[in-house]
Amino acid sequence: MDLDLAQLRALDATVTAGTLDGAARALHVTPSAISQRLRALEAATGRVLLVRSKPVQVTESGQPVLRLARQVALLAADASRELAPGDGDRPVTLPIALNADSMATWVLPALAPLAGEIAFDLHLQDQEHTAALLREGRVMAAVTAAADPVPGCTVTRLGGMRYRPMATPEFARRWFPDGVTAPALARAPAVVFDRTDDLQHGYLRSRGVDPAVPPLHHVPASVDYVTAVTLGFGWGMVPRQQEPPGGLAELDRDGAVDVVLHWQQWRLRSTSLDRVADAVRTAARRHLDHP
Amino acid sequence: MDLDLAQLRALDATVTAGTLDGAARALHVTPSAISQRLRALEAATGRVLLVRSKPVQVTESGQPVLRLARQVALLAADASRELAPGDGDRPVTLPIALNADSMATWVLPALAPLAGEIAFDLHLQDQEHTAALLREGRVMAAVTAAADPVPGCTVTRLGGMRYRPMATPEFARRWFPDGVTAPALARAPAVVFDRTDDLQHGYLRSRGVDPAVPPLHHVPASVDYVTAVTLGFGWGMVPRQQEPPGGLAELDRDGAVDVVLHWQQWRLRSTSLDRVADAVRTAARRHLDHP
Repeated sequence: MDLDLAQLRALDATVTAGTLDGAARALHVTPSAISQRLRALEAATGRVLLVRSKPVQVTESGQPVLRLARQVALLAADASRELAPGDGDRPVTLPIALNADSMATWVLPALAPLAGEIAFDLHLQDQEHTAALLREGRVMAAVTAAADPVPGCTVTRLGGMRYRPMATPEFARRWFPDGVTAPALARAPAVVFDRTDDLQHGYLRSRGVDPAVPPLHHVPASVDYVTAVTLGFGWGMVPRQQEPPGGLAELDRDGAVDVVLHWQQWRLRSTSLDRVADAVRTAARRHLDHP
Repeated sequence: MDLDLAQLRALDATVTAGTLDGAARALHVTPSAISQRLRALEAATGRVLLVRSKPVQVTESGQPVLRLARQVALLAADASRELAPGDGDRPVTLPIALNADSMATWVLPALAPLAGEIAFDLHLQDQEHTAALLREGRVMAAVTAAADPVPGCTVTRLGGMRYRPMATPEFARRWFPDGVTAPALARAPAVVFDRTDDLQHGYLRSRGVDPAVPPLHHVPASVDYVTAVTLGFGWGMVPRQQEPPGGLAELDRDGAVDVVLHWQQWRLRSTSLDRVADAVRTAARRHLDHP
């Protein structure tokens, strides 16, 4: 297969911008130039790579080509930075997936020192979808509970986040006067992040309570989730890294659940990606649990 | 059309739980009883109401039936609460859509006093999808920038959130030594919430800068977004309600954008829904802008 860099760049920019017009503006060419390059790339690969919806959708055949396009773009940006350091190059964009609680606690301060040279395109995803994003080439790296390497990726263990069932002291007194008994857990409201969050469900099952029985609040944002527990909406599984200064009561000393996080990234020697990986691993050593 | 309450309840519970098994556990019946009721409801309406995927998907024909099921469930829960107040009824679940910045600032404290009687199923959605959720019957109310009433809904104006272009004082000195000129805005990194967030793009266009040009960080969670601006990732449009105590610098006194929020809810006399609407309107009077 003959590779044309301008064609690959058109694919990358179109997926990033979501539209051919956006890609044209980003690359300072006309929309018809983008369209021609995409058609030529589809002719060269013999496959339909994009569905021209709004935003465009990458087809299954388009995934390896998009991944290739982004790998090439990253390596080219690294090389040009090395050839002419500090000449005010446009920062390279790194799409990274991460779980909501990591983004809300320890990841942003770790990435901040690199934010002048790298544009961080952060995607919030649960574990299941993160593997798909890596496979599809939509993200280059991920902080994820998925320990199995996605094909083409390396994986490093970062450390754990320990979730414990917590509530305000007033909530604990009102709903659990005799501790976390099964009848009390079946009646007390719980706060759940979203439909894919199994932490509260898992704890309830471990105590013999069907998770379909208690009333559930759904609060699908990480900081807001802890705010809801702190405001007394219900009990919830809260990691040490997110305990509010005011203090929540731990409901059950045997109720902790450890979620082990991993760094997965494309198998690729890239200075930019290596620097981000170093920053994330250093912060993880400090902020995550290493039992 | 002959209505069967048990059948409507099966539809509601299946969509809420996402699976027939989950609905069966929630209603304390067998999965085959759920399956029979759904088939009977589909026979009575002459339509396929659900796609049996995981989670189940409501078809277009299923939307008005789901909406009806939830309206009936809400009215029945209200009535039973009125007949036997305080007898420890299972709280009624209210699915509500809201924009991320409202959830992160003024809405949760307003809902907290009701969280013992009402289970809040909060959905984060941008304006466009919120109207769809109301129409489909997936949410009963919404805090949304959409001013046009969705068919079957009432709409009340809540007040405004005023977004201003802000950054840390260090960021402003480094990237905008001569103020927010077009060349400086074309080079300075900006923080954007997600692909549907047009606030930064709108400001850039108003200053003659193509939004495809500057480097963009994407940080898709409301509190984390402000954290990223505070950590110096880039400049961003920040509402007064979210300004951090440490203080950010306002970049452009003429750059404010007002987003006017509305409360949309199903046209339905329900005690529970009315109490939530009252709490939201009272908090909005206090926390939103009323120029």
